[in-house]
Amino acid sequence: MLLAPGYRRGVSARELVVLGTASQAPTRRRNHNGYLLRWDDEGLLLDPGEGTQRQLVRAGVPVSAVTRLCLTHFHGDHCLGVPGVLQRRSLDAVEHPLHAYYPASGRPYFERLRHASSYVETARTVEHPVEQDGVVLDTGRWRLVAQHLDHRVDTLGWRVEEHDGVRILPERLAERGVRGPDVGRLLRDGRLDRGDGDVVLLRDVSAPRRGQVFAFVMDTRRCDAALELARGADLLVCEATFLHRDADLADRYAHLTARSAAEIAREAGARRLVLTHLSQRYPLPDEHLAEAAAVFPDVVVAEDLDRVPVPPR
Amino acid sequence: MLLAPGYRRGVSARELVVLGTASQAPTRRRNHNGYLLRWDDEGLLLDPGEGTQRQLVRAGVPVSAVTRLCLTHFHGDHCLGVPGVLQRRSLDAVEHPLHAYYPASGRPYFERLRHASSYVETARTVEHPVEQDGVVLDTGRWRLVAQHLDHRVDTLGWRVEEHDGVRILPERLAERGVRGPDVGRLLRDGRLDRGDGDVVLLRDVSAPRRGQVFAFVMDTRRCDAALELARGADLLVCEATFLHRDADLADRYAHLTARSAAEIAREAGARRLVLTHLSQRYPLPDEHLAEAAAVFPDVVVAEDLDRVPVPPR
Repeated sequence: MLLAPGYRRGVSARELVVLGTASQAPTRRRNHNGYLLRWDDEGLLLDPGEGTQRQLVRAGVPVSAVTRLCLTHFHGDHCLGVPGVLQRRSLDAVEHPLHAYYPASGRPYFERLRHASSYVETARTVEHPVEQDGVVLDTGRWRLVAQHLDHRVDTLGWRVEEHDGVRILPERLAERGVRGPDVGRLLRDGRLDRGDGDVVLLRDVSAPRRGQVFAFVMDTRRCDAALELARGADLLVCEATFLHRDADLADRYAHLTARSAAEIAREAGARRLVLTHLSQRYPLPDEHLAEAAAVFPDVVVAEDLDRVPVPPR
Repeated sequence: MLLAPGYRRGVSARELVVLGTASQAPTRRRNHNGYLLRWDDEGLLLDPGEGTQRQLVRAGVPVSAVTRLCLTHFHGDHCLGVPGVLQRRSLDAVEHPLHAYYPASGRPYFERLRHASSYVETARTVEHPVEQDGVVLDTGRWRLVAQHLDHRVDTLGWRVEEHDGVRILPERLAERGVRGPDVGRLLRDGRLDRGDGDVVLLRDVSAPRRGQVFAFVMDTRRCDAALELARGADLLVCEATFLHRDADLADRYAHLTARSAAEIAREAGARRLVLTHLSQRYPLPDEHLAEAAAVFPDVVVAEDLDRVPVPPR
């Protein structure tokens, strides 16, 4: 991957596995779009273009790692990998269901992709066509939010929001003499009753911790929804099909430039920006990096098979 | 590519461009199935699996080189590349139509593949669902023949047969004093009238030349149709999913082994055999080569992006 000087190194249990970075035409170097967000025990597959099944093999990720599928829209470079992934789940006898989220207007396309060729469908797929903006899922630990963007066809952006939590303050724990299994009880119950009126409250030994946020803004003109999705995101994945010098093309085809993606990141107060979905017209991604880094510090121009950590809070 | 000692080197204007060589699961090394037969001014795309669009890029072949599409059956590894190829033809504004041949029972699948996602279909596709065995096309120079094989779903094998022609004998031409543009006239008209009863007949200055034959035998148990398709083929492409030691699996899933493919080539009097569609269970293809070469001399175990000449006559 191409890193801006302002990229902050570090590791995280949550990461983006980049499966492909091309826009509508793949190249020798770039497969069609495709992303796996590893988020605790879940794997969210976003916009799998053609060839995603093999890119998963190359990334060393079994298809069973995918628990949810989020599509922004039904242009081929964002969904033609769906049949391969669904069929492979049945071939590998994956037992857990796959929950699929996509713009409801694309139901006929999803139906065709799901039954594009002959196979024995044993792995379960649970479809969640999305009619309107808002929260489409709340797991109790994080929420999945969809919001309509402004592209040539009906398109959704996605946002994964961890619920806010707390960060334990070890010195406060020590002051109150809480240790061992009591810490777990305190975290679980929010209080620890040690008898004789000796109650430790979680809020007294912790500080609030904002939940992590991942945002996925694909194929869109600049619009308010893109900003709202990106608001305070720890990791923002944003299409940057064009360079600013081709802003007329970006406008005509309802896409972003590297500069406009970086402006969204800056205005939304995002922490790290991943640029992807690059047009084949640019043989090298250096200019994308330079253009974005001039506006926003922590930028990555993604290459196929990169792994980008979600910056920890 | 892995060549047997009996492989005869040489070049030919007609060649097989190997786009992928895996069976149902792609590997780091092998893309899903896919083959382009370059045959004079035509390009026959056979069984494009997922990722074929990008494999064409890697092979340096524009999608406009494809003039016909032949599918053996509608398992994903033989057809999930169809949407990408059709959509790319429209994107590239290819002007000539694509003629698509496939088993008629698969019409609903072809329909879904053709309209799998949202695009503006400007390039023409002319569908030729095949109901029964026999000649499905005669261009005047060559014929396309289909014949049903024996797989788990309705499956066709394919055969391209050049019409028999003649080979000019230069010494006979010299004897009769035919040269320059007269040679072309003689070839075109079969005779050359030089006045005063001086007529040269083509047959007097040439020898018969058998037309070239290409055969494509995919996903099948051993059956009479496989032998008939392969009869006298200059180039036989044959699936060899398994090795003989796994003949029980080959039988259970209605596939061939390297040995049985070589036996078909030998019994059919083929000239060159290309083995492909290898199961991912075999990390290396050496055993496929050894097993087949023990039965039939001119064997190639195909690797992705190989180009295999059709041996000239």
